[in-house]
Amino acid sequence: MICQHVSIKTIIPLSLSSQPLNSLKSDEAASGPKQGPTFQDGQRRVDYVLTYHIQKPRSFRRKTSHFGDYRILRSLRRSLSMMRGRDTPPPKEDPEVAAHKHRLDYHEDDKRFRQTEFEDNLREMGLELEKDEGNKIPGIGFLKIHAPWNVLCREAEFMKLKMPTKKVCDVVERINLFIRKVTAPLHPKVEPNRAQNVKHLSHPFSREKQHLFDLSDRESFFDSKTRASIVSTIDLKFDLLKMTITGITSLLGNGVYTAAYPLHDGDVDSMGPEANDRKILYEEWASYSVFYKYQPIGLIRKYFGEKIGLYFAWLGVYTQMLIPAAIVGAIVFLYGCATVDNDIPSMEICDPRNNITMCPLCDRACSYWKLKTACGTARASHLFDNPATVFFSIFMALWAAMFMEHWKRRQMRLNYIWDLTGFEEEEVSLCPCFGTCLDKKVKLTCTDRAPAYMTGLFTMLFMVGVTFAVVFGVILYRISIRAALHMSSNPTARTNIRATVKGTAAVINLVIIIIMDEVYGALARWLTLLEVPKTDKSFEERLIIKTFVLKFANAFSPIVYLAFFRDGDYLCYLRCAHAGCLMELCIQLCITMLGKQLIQNNLFEIGIPKIKKLIRRRKSDMDSQQQEDYNMTLQRHEKDHFLGPFVGLSPEYMEMIIQFGMVTLFVASFPLAPLFALLNNIIEIRLDAKKFVTEVRRPIAGSAKDIGIWYNLLRGLSKVAVIVNAFVISFTSDFIPRLVYQYMYSPDGSMHGFVNHTLSYFNVSDFQPGTAPLQPMHLGYEVQICRYKDYRETPWSNTPYDLSKEFWAILACRLAFVVVFQNVVMLMSDFVDWLIPDIPKDISLQIHKEKILMVELFMKEEEGKKLLRDSHAKQSPLQPRSRPASHTPSNC
Amino acid sequence: MICQHVSIKTIIPLSLSSQPLNSLKSDEAASGPKQGPTFQDGQRRVDYVLTYHIQKPRSFRRKTSHFGDYRILRSLRRSLSMMRGRDTPPPKEDPEVAAHKHRLDYHEDDKRFRQTEFEDNLREMGLELEKDEGNKIPGIGFLKIHAPWNVLCREAEFMKLKMPTKKVCDVVERINLFIRKVTAPLHPKVEPNRAQNVKHLSHPFSREKQHLFDLSDRESFFDSKTRASIVSTIDLKFDLLKMTITGITSLLGNGVYTAAYPLHDGDVDSMGPEANDRKILYEEWASYSVFYKYQPIGLIRKYFGEKIGLYFAWLGVYTQMLIPAAIVGAIVFLYGCATVDNDIPSMEICDPRNNITMCPLCDRACSYWKLKTACGTARASHLFDNPATVFFSIFMALWAAMFMEHWKRRQMRLNYIWDLTGFEEEEVSLCPCFGTCLDKKVKLTCTDRAPAYMTGLFTMLFMVGVTFAVVFGVILYRISIRAALHMSSNPTARTNIRATVKGTAAVINLVIIIIMDEVYGALARWLTLLEVPKTDKSFEERLIIKTFVLKFANAFSPIVYLAFFRDGDYLCYLRCAHAGCLMELCIQLCITMLGKQLIQNNLFEIGIPKIKKLIRRRKSDMDSQQQEDYNMTLQRHEKDHFLGPFVGLSPEYMEMIIQFGMVTLFVASFPLAPLFALLNNIIEIRLDAKKFVTEVRRPIAGSAKDIGIWYNLLRGLSKVAVIVNAFVISFTSDFIPRLVYQYMYSPDGSMHGFVNHTLSYFNVSDFQPGTAPLQPMHLGYEVQICRYKDYRETPWSNTPYDLSKEFWAILACRLAFVVVFQNVVMLMSDFVDWLIPDIPKDISLQIHKEKILMVELFMKEEEGKKLLRDSHAKQSPLQPRSRPASHTPSNC
Repeated sequence: MICQHVSIKTIIPLSLSSQPLNSLKSDEAASGPKQGPTFQDGQRRVDYVLTYHIQKPRSFRRKTSHFGDYRILRSLRRSLSMMRGRDTPPPKEDPEVAAHKHRLDYHEDDKRFRQTEFEDNLREMGLELEKDEGNKIPGIGFLKIHAPWNVLCREAEFMKLKMPTKKVCDVVERINLFIRKVTAPLHPKVEPNRAQNVKHLSHPFSREKQHLFDLSDRESFFDSKTRASIVSTIDLKFDLLKMTITGITSLLGNGVYTAAYPLHDGDVDSMGPEANDRKILYEEWASYSVFYKYQPIGLIRKYFGEKIGLYFAWLGVYTQMLIPAAIVGAIVFLYGCATVDNDIPSMEICDPRNNITMCPLCDRACSYWKLKTACGTARASHLFDNPATVFFSIFMALWAAMFMEHWKRRQMRLNYIWDLTGFEEEEVSLCPCFGTCLDKKVKLTCTDRAPAYMTGLFTMLFMVGVTFAVVFGVILYRISIRAALHMSSNPTARTNIRATVKGTAAVINLVIIIIMDEVYGALARWLTLLEVPKTDKSFEERLIIKTFVLKFANAFSPIVYLAFFRDGDYLCYLRCAHAGCLMELCIQLCITMLGKQLIQNNLFEIGIPKIKKLIRRRKSDMDSQQQEDYNMTLQRHEKDHFLGPFVGLSPEYMEMIIQFGMVTLFVASFPLAPLFALLNNIIEIRLDAKKFVTEVRRPIAGSAKDIGIWYNLLRGLSKVAVIVNAFVISFTSDFIPRLVYQYMYSPDGSMHGFVNHTLSYFNVSDFQPGTAPLQPMHLGYEVQICRYKDYRETPWSNTPYDLSKEFWAILACRLAFVVVFQNVVMLMSDFVDWLIPDIPKDISLQIHKEKILMVELFMKEEEGKKLLRDSHAKQSPLQPRSRPASHTPSNC
Repeated sequence: MICQHVSIKTIIPLSLSSQPLNSLKSDEAASGPKQGPTFQDGQRRVDYVLTYHIQKPRSFRRKTSHFGDYRILRSLRRSLSMMRGRDTPPPKEDPEVAAHKHRLDYHEDDKRFRQTEFEDNLREMGLELEKDEGNKIPGIGFLKIHAPWNVLCREAEFMKLKMPTKKVCDVVERINLFIRKVTAPLHPKVEPNRAQNVKHLSHPFSREKQHLFDLSDRESFFDSKTRASIVSTIDLKFDLLKMTITGITSLLGNGVYTAAYPLHDGDVDSMGPEANDRKILYEEWASYSVFYKYQPIGLIRKYFGEKIGLYFAWLGVYTQMLIPAAIVGAIVFLYGCATVDNDIPSMEICDPRNNITMCPLCDRACSYWKLKTACGTARASHLFDNPATVFFSIFMALWAAMFMEHWKRRQMRLNYIWDLTGFEEEEVSLCPCFGTCLDKKVKLTCTDRAPAYMTGLFTMLFMVGVTFAVVFGVILYRISIRAALHMSSNPTARTNIRATVKGTAAVINLVIIIIMDEVYGALARWLTLLEVPKTDKSFEERLIIKTFVLKFANAFSPIVYLAFFRDGDYLCYLRCAHAGCLMELCIQLCITMLGKQLIQNNLFEIGIPKIKKLIRRRKSDMDSQQQEDYNMTLQRHEKDHFLGPFVGLSPEYMEMIIQFGMVTLFVASFPLAPLFALLNNIIEIRLDAKKFVTEVRRPIAGSAKDIGIWYNLLRGLSKVAVIVNAFVISFTSDFIPRLVYQYMYSPDGSMHGFVNHTLSYFNVSDFQPGTAPLQPMHLGYEVQICRYKDYRETPWSNTPYDLSKEFWAILACRLAFVVVFQNVVMLMSDFVDWLIPDIPKDISLQIHKEKILMVELFMKEEEGKKLLRDSHAKQSPLQPRSRPASHTPSNC
C-alpha cells in the first residue's frame, strides 16, 4: 500500500530506469492469471496455511458475549476461569460435570481469543487472510494467508534477501563442452530453457534500489518458497518483538492452531501441459528410474529452500565419493580372495604335517585339540586381514579428508550460485519448545539449569552403560552356548554350531540396536527439553549431540567390544588365534550395516508410511475409486493437510552419519563397507526424495550456508577413525606380528615358521588343580606339552610363563605403528586440507568478476546521478519547482 | 556536490527526521575551525599525502610541449622513446651521453605524464588536490589530497562502512562495579568523558538512510583514520576497475610517486591543552611507565585501524595468558630445586659407596671413569627432569588450548564492539608486487608457475638442509673440542671445559640463528615474488608461510637435534646418562630464547633506529638546537616524511609466533620459558607501541575481523607441541624408565637400585681391536667389567650385548605413553574448545538485543511512512501536486 500511493524518489539515470518505469504498474493491475492455489477470488495466492480445530457450535453461544471485549479479557485470561467459576451460577446440572464443561469451554474460548488476536496482528502487518471452515474435512478450519506485494517488498528488504538483478554476468565455462555433452545423459532434464552460462547478479533487495531488479513479472519475482518463508518470518517476529505468547510457535504448541504449512505447487500426477516444479521434481528426481543421474539441486533448492537443498547436495557428494572407495574396497577384498592360497601362515595351519597339539580352550570341559581344525577360519580371515587392508585404511583416512574438502568446495560453489555469500544465519526463535517453556521464560540461572544438566549427563552415562550391559549379555549367551557345545563330542557339529553362535549373536545385537535406537531418539528429545535451551538452533544442536552419542554408542558398542576387548582370559586362549578377531568383527559389522540399512531404511521408511496410509483408508470407509473421486474435489490446502508433517532433517542426517562412521571407523576390518554404503545411498536418495515430494507437507524453506553441526560431527568422526584404524590394524590384526617375525626372527626372511613362533609351550603338569581337562585322552594319545597362542617364556626357562622378550618387542612395534600411523595420516589429512583450496578457483574468479561488475554498476549509477544533477542545475534557476516532473511512478 | 543540489526524497517520519533536518547544512557552511593539518586555505583537511621527486627544471622545457596532448601520447608511451630518438635530431653532444640523457629525460616525462593522469583521475572521482613543491625539503614534492563530504559519503556507502547511528543501546554491565573500581588503576586514562555502558547501534552507511546517523558534527563523523582509508580505497579502485597501470600501487612501484601515507594527528609533545589522539596514545600506551596497565585498545583501533588494533589486542591477551603459565612454570622449577636432595637416583650417583666403574666415553683416547664424577650434572638435571615437568607439559598443552579459545572470544568481543560482525574481507589489490608484475598480468598457467614453485620448494629444502648442516658443524666443533679435552688428565679442568664447550656451542648456534634469520627473511620475500601471486592477501600468506618455515627450522634445529638425535653411538654411551639430555636441551633453549629476544628485539629494534636517526642528523649538518628549530617550522606532512615507512605487522607477529613455539614446544625441558616470554612481552608491547606512535608514518587503516593466517599457525604449533612434548617426556627424560623400574623391577617399590638397573655390563675383553683405552690403569686399578648406560644383555648371557627384555618393555611403555599422552591431551584440548563457547554470553545477548532494536527501528520507520502516506492520501484528492512540500533538504 505504501508502494502504490507514495513514490520514493530514487534518482535513477534515465538509461537505467527506462525499463522498470514501464514495468512498474500498480499491484493488482499487473497480475495476470495466477498460478497455484488462490483465495476464493481467484486472484490472491495462498502463501501459507494455518489449520485449527473448529469448535462445536455449542460454545458459540458464550463466545459471542466475550468477543467484543477480548482485549481486556486477554490480560485477565489466566485468572478468568476461576472468576467465572464464582460469578456465573451453575445451571441445573451435576456440579462436577458443569465444572468440567466450564474448563473445556474456557479453554475453547481462550483459544478463540488468541486466534483472533493473532489474526489481527497478522492483518496489522499487512497480510491478507481468508478463512475456510470448509465442509470437506469436518472439524478442521483453514486460515489461508496471502502476502501482498508491498508486504513482500518490505519484508524482503528487512530480511536483506538477495534477489537477482537485471545485470547478468557470464559464468566462466570451465567445463569443456565435450565433457558436458558426454555427461549429458547424467543430468536431469529440468530447466531446459535456462541459459546455462549466464547468472544474474544479485543484490539485497531494497525498495530504494528497485530499478536494479527486474520487476516485470511480479508473480514470479518472489517464488512460492520465498513468499512462504517471508510469511513465516512475520509470524515469528511476534515472538522476537513482543515477547508475548502470540507467536506462531507458541500458538502451535498450545494447540490454538494445529498446523502451519506452505502449500505444495501442484499435484505430482497432474495432467496439464504446464508442469509445476513439484511434478518435475517427482519425475526427474524422486524416481528410482533416474538413480544414475545427478540430482537437480538447483530446483530442489528453489522448491524446498537451502537447508534441504544442502542436505541432498551433501548426500549426493557423499554418494559420489563412495564410488571410488567402493571400487578400491572391492579390489582389496578380491586381492584377499586371490592371495588366500599363497598365505603361508594359513597354509601352515592347514598343513596336516604340522601336527600341533593345542591346549584346551576352557577349563575342565574342553580338551586338547589339533591346530589344523582351525584351517577354514584361518583361510577365511585372510580375506579381511592382509597387507592390503593396511593400505586401505590409510586410503580411507585420506578419502575422508578428501571428502570433507570436496564438500567444503561444493558448499562454497552452492553458496555462490545461490547467492548466500555474506548471508548471516539468524537465530529465529526464542521459544523452541512449542509453548511448553513459556512459563519458564524467566531467566534461568546456572543453578536452575544444573539439575537438568546433571540428569542429562547421568542418564546418558547410564544408557551407554545399558548398551554395554546388553553387549555383555550377548557375550554371556555366547559363552553359555559355547560351553554346552564343548560338552558335545562331534567335531563337525562343533564347527557348525560355532558359526551359528556367532551369527545368532550378531543378529541379536542387531535387533537390540534397532529397538534401542528408537528408545534413544525419544530419550534424547526428553533430555533436551529438560535443559530448556534458549534458541531453536541451540535446541537442535543439543538434541543432535545427545542423539548422536546415544545412537553411536548403541551402534558401535558390540563392534568396539569385539575389536578391543576379549573374553575372559582363561576361558579361551585361542579366541583370536588365526581364527579371526578381525573375522568376527567383520561378521558383526556386515550384519549390523546390512541389517540396519535394510530394516531401518527400507522397512521402516517405506513400509510404515504405506501401512499408515492403508489404515487411514480403511478408517475412511471408502473404496479406492471413491477415494480418488473425493481427492479430485479437494483443494490444494486440503490435500496437503492429509500429508504427514515435516519433521526436520535430523533423522536423515543422523542415519547417514552413523553410516559414515561404519564406513570409516572399522574400514580396516571390513573393506566392503563402502560398497554396501554406496548401494544403500543410491536407494536412500530417491527414497528421501519421494518422501519429501509426495509424502510430507511442504516444509518452510530454511536458509543455511552450511550443514552446521553435522560437519563438525563428520570431522570428529574422521579424526577418531584414524586412531581407531591404527589400533585395529596394530592390535586386532596379525599385521604387526607378521612383520616383526619376518624382519626380526625369521631365519630366512620368509613367513615360514610364523605359526610356530606365535605359539608358546605349556607343560600339562602345570595345570592348576581343577583346571586340567576331564578327557585328557580325547585326541587318542597322552599330551605332555601343549601349545597356546601367546608370547610367553617356556616352562623350562628361568621365569616360566612370564611374558617373553618377543611379547615386549611386538608390543613396542604395535605401539610404534600406532604413533606413526596416527601422526602420518593426520599430517597427510591436514596436508590435503591445506593443498585443496576451500574456494574453487573458478568460483573465486567469478566472485571477483561480480565484484567488479558491482563497482561498475555503482559508478554508472553515480554518473547517472551526476548527469541528472547537472541537468537540474541548468534548469533550476528557471524552474525551481519543476522537479516533481522527474518523479517516477515507482511502486515500492 | 550531488548532495547539495539534488535531494533524495527519503520518506522519513517527522518525529525521526526533525533532528537531522536541522543539522544538515551545506557542506562548507557547517565546517567550523578545522582540526589537524589542512590545505593552504586552512579549511580543507589533508587526508592523504603522496610524495614524489621534483624533476630538475631542465626537463620542463620539453614537458610543456607534450603536456597538452598527453592523452594521445599516453597510449603510445611505450613506443615513444624510440620514435623520439629518430624524430628529434640530437643536439651537438656526444651521442652516447645524449642518448642517456634522452632516456632519463623520457623517463622523467613519462613519470610526469602518469602523475598528471593519475591526478586527473583523482579529481574526476571528486577528490581535491593541492601541491606543495615546498622549499623546506629539497627535491621532494607533496601532493595533498582532501576528500570532500560528498565523496566520503559516496564511498562510505559503497564500502558499506558501518557507522554509529543515533540509536543507543545499553551495554549489559556484567562486570561488577566493585571489580571495576579495584582494577581502575590498571585501565589507561583515555576517553574519560565517554559513557562506558552505552553503545551506539551501527548500520552500514547509506545516503538514503542518513536520518539514522548523527551528522551534526561532520568533521568528526568520519575520523581521520576512516578518511584516509576511504581515499586509499579510491586510489586502489583504479587497479580494480581499469586494469591499467594507473593504480597507486603500480605508480609507487614504478617510482612515479615515492610514498603514500596518511598524516599523524599531531605531535606527541605538543603543548596545547587539547590533546590529540596521538599524544594520548604516546602518554597512556607507548610508555614503559604504564607497563602494568591494560592497553587502550579502543583508541589504538580508532587511530591505527582494526588490523593493528587486533595485533595489540592479541599481544595483550597472549601476555596476560602468560602470567599463569609463568607462575606455574616457576613453581615447577622451584619444586625441582626443593626436591633435588630427595632424588634417590642422583643420591645414588653421588654416593661414594656406589663405587661404579664406567666404560670409556670414546675410543682409545678416553679411559674408564667413576660414576660419581657425574654427580653435579645429575643433581642439576633433576631441576628440569622431575615428575612435575610431566604435569607442566599437560598443563601447557591445555594452556595453549585455553589461550586459543580465550583469543577467539576476545576477538569476537572486539568484533562486536568494533561493529565488524558481518564485515567481509575484500581482496583489495590485484597487483601486490609493486609494479614489477605488471607485464606478467597475462594469465599465468600452471606450466608457467611450475618453475617458480619448484625453485621455491628446492630452495626451501636446501636452506633447511643448510640449517641442519650448520647445527652439525657446531656438533663437530663440540666433538673435536671434547676429544682434545679427554686427552687432558686434569679432572677438574675437564668438568669446567665440558661446561664451557656446551656454553660456547649454544652461543655459536645463537649467533648463526640471528644471522640466518635476516638471510631467510630476504630469501622468503624473493621466492614469493618469483611465484607472482594474484592478490595482496595471497602474497602475504605465501610470504608468511615461507618465512615461518625457514625461521622456524632455523630457530629450532639445534633444539630438535639435542632433543632427539644423539652423537655417534660409540662416541659416547653416557652422553645422556644421568647428566641430562634434558639439561643440555635446557641450556640451548635458555640461551636461544634469552639471546634472541635480547639481541633481536632490544638491540635491533631499539638500537638500529637510534643509530639511523643519529646518522641522519649527522648528515644534515645541524646541531640539535638548529634541528629543533628546523623541526618547528615543518608542517605535519613534512615531519611525517622524515619518519620511517610502515612495513607491516608480519615481523612483529613472526617474532611472537616463534616465541610461542619456544614456550609450548619444549616446555617439558624448560619450565621457565613462559616466565622469560612474559618479561620479554611486557617490554615488547611498549616497544612496538613507541615504534608505531613515534617512529613510523601512520599506516593506512586496514580492516580485519581476525588475525588471519597467524591463528592457523598458532593452532598448528599448539597441535605439534602436544606430540613434541609427548616425545620429549617419554624419550628424552628419565620419567618412563623410572616409572617402569618402580612398578616392574624394583624389589621394594622404591627407586633404590635404579641407577644400577640402567647400567649394563661390559667385559673389557670384548673391546674390538683398536678401541680399547690407551690408559687402562687410569683409575689406579685394573678393570675387568665396566658399566655403560643401556639396556642390554650381560656378557655371560646366551645372546651377549643384545637388547634386553627390559629395553623392549621400557620402549613399549615409552610408546604407550606417547599414544596415551597425545590422545588424552588432544581430547582434552578439543573438550576445552567445545566447552568454552566461541561467543561470550554477554556479547551474544547484546547482539540479540541490538537485533531487536533494529527490528523496532525498522518497524517505527515503516509506521512513520504509513502515517505520512495516510496524511498524503487525505491531502492528495485536494492537492495532488503538493507532495514536493515534504521534500527535505537532505544533503547526501
